[in-house]
Amino acid sequence: MQAEFTIETRGQGLYEFTSDIRDWLSASGADGLLTLFVRHTSCSLLIQENADPEVQTDLQAFFSRLVPPSDHPSMSYLKHTYEGPDDMPAHIKAAMMPVSLSVPVLSGRPALGTWQGIYLFEHRTAPHVRRVAAHFG
Amino acid sequence: MQAEFTIETRGQGLYEFTSDIRDWLSASGADGLLTLFVRHTSCSLLIQENADPEVQTDLQAFFSRLVPPSDHPSMSYLKHTYEGPDDMPAHIKAAMMPVSLSVPVLSGRPALGTWQGIYLFEHRTAPHVRRVAAHFG
Amino acid sequence: MQAEFTIETRGQGLYEFTSDIRDWLSASGADGLLTLFVRHTSCSLLIQENADPEVQTDLQAFFSRLVPPSDHPSMSYLKHTYEGPDDMPAHIKAAMMPVSLSVPVLSGRPALGTWQGIYLFEHRTAPHVRRVAAHFG
Repeated sequence: MQAEFTIETRGQGLYEFTSDIRDWLSASGADGLLTLFVRHTSCSLLIQENADPEVQTDLQAFFSRLVPPSDHPSMSYLKHTYEGPDDMPAHIKAAMMPVSLSVPVLSGRPALGTWQGIYLFEHRTAPHVRRVAAHFG
Repeated sequence: MQAEFTIETRGQGLYEFTSDIRDWLSASGADGLLTLFVRHTSCSLLIQENADPEVQTDLQAFFSRLVPPSDHPSMSYLKHTYEGPDDMPAHIKAAMMPVSLSVPVLSGRPALGTWQGIYLFEHRTAPHVRRVAAHFG
Repeated sequence: MQAEFTIETRGQGLYEFTSDIRDWLSASGADGLLTLFVRHTSCSLLIQENADPEVQTDLQAFFSRLVPPSDHPSMSYLKHTYEGPDDMPAHIKAAMMPVSLSVPVLSGRPALGTWQGIYLFEHRTAPHVRRVAAHFG
């Protein structure tokens, strides 16, 4: 079965949608494989710790330093800048972090570890509506 | 169904093969899941923007700076250098970017977003013949 | 079919378990898709070169420099540090490298290239028992 999930973002950061996925899978109760695919090139999918919110802010802080905005002196070689200083860094982060994720499912339950949550990682500063295609089979 | 795609590269950079994948999938017309897997450890698979070619050159420029050739002073700690200064950096980039990608498919059409293309990202400087294993089911 | 593999780690580094996967798949002899998923947020799955062990030590050296321990002056902005200086860097590396991998399988044989091995990349310094969920179908 297939579905599309919509996540509304309000700037850079991690947005959890684990419960949406759990609800969708539990209806089937079957064994199989869950695959998520984000239909954009300026955000990512992450499976990360869902216990301490500081993990999420630290992740954002690290990647903002590793890939600074294109108006930062160290990034002056970038050419694709016309959508703003957060445009090309978003594409770079989208290359470094997953566009697709696959998780085995047993009896309608994804094999996530105790501390694992599913997140959309938004790399743009403006609000966006993000679509995630889901496949279970 | 399974297939193998061959991509001939001529140095570092992104090589798009979206249309090969679309053609292969459209013949079936079915729903399912597409998975691509690159059978090498010195190149990557990427889904990235296919509108502005400067995104591709900027991606290459960023990763060349993040992971300089092994004859660069900052990389003097690297030991696996006998295939040349682009050898170990290629393995590092292959660890940071996907070796496999999965995309849901509806009626033979992959759920790619409007601006998403499928690329092989070559990390070596010499020409190579790259093989990508494809699974649809 | 599904299974769970257990990998005992003894500090940071790459731990190969390709033969465990090959053995599990060969029993079926079937065509299909293998998917591996690591049920933790402080280690990664990698497909990398299995010929020269220096590739593995170089990979570890690179990522240790790219993401230094949180008691390093350059990382003073990190907040999630109570499990030790290797804690948050482990989460960051787990965001940069795969949590899931998919490999097409023909007649019970994964389509790995000649030099490709399957590794768990441990990012924590203390020993851990790591669980990898496997799906074949």
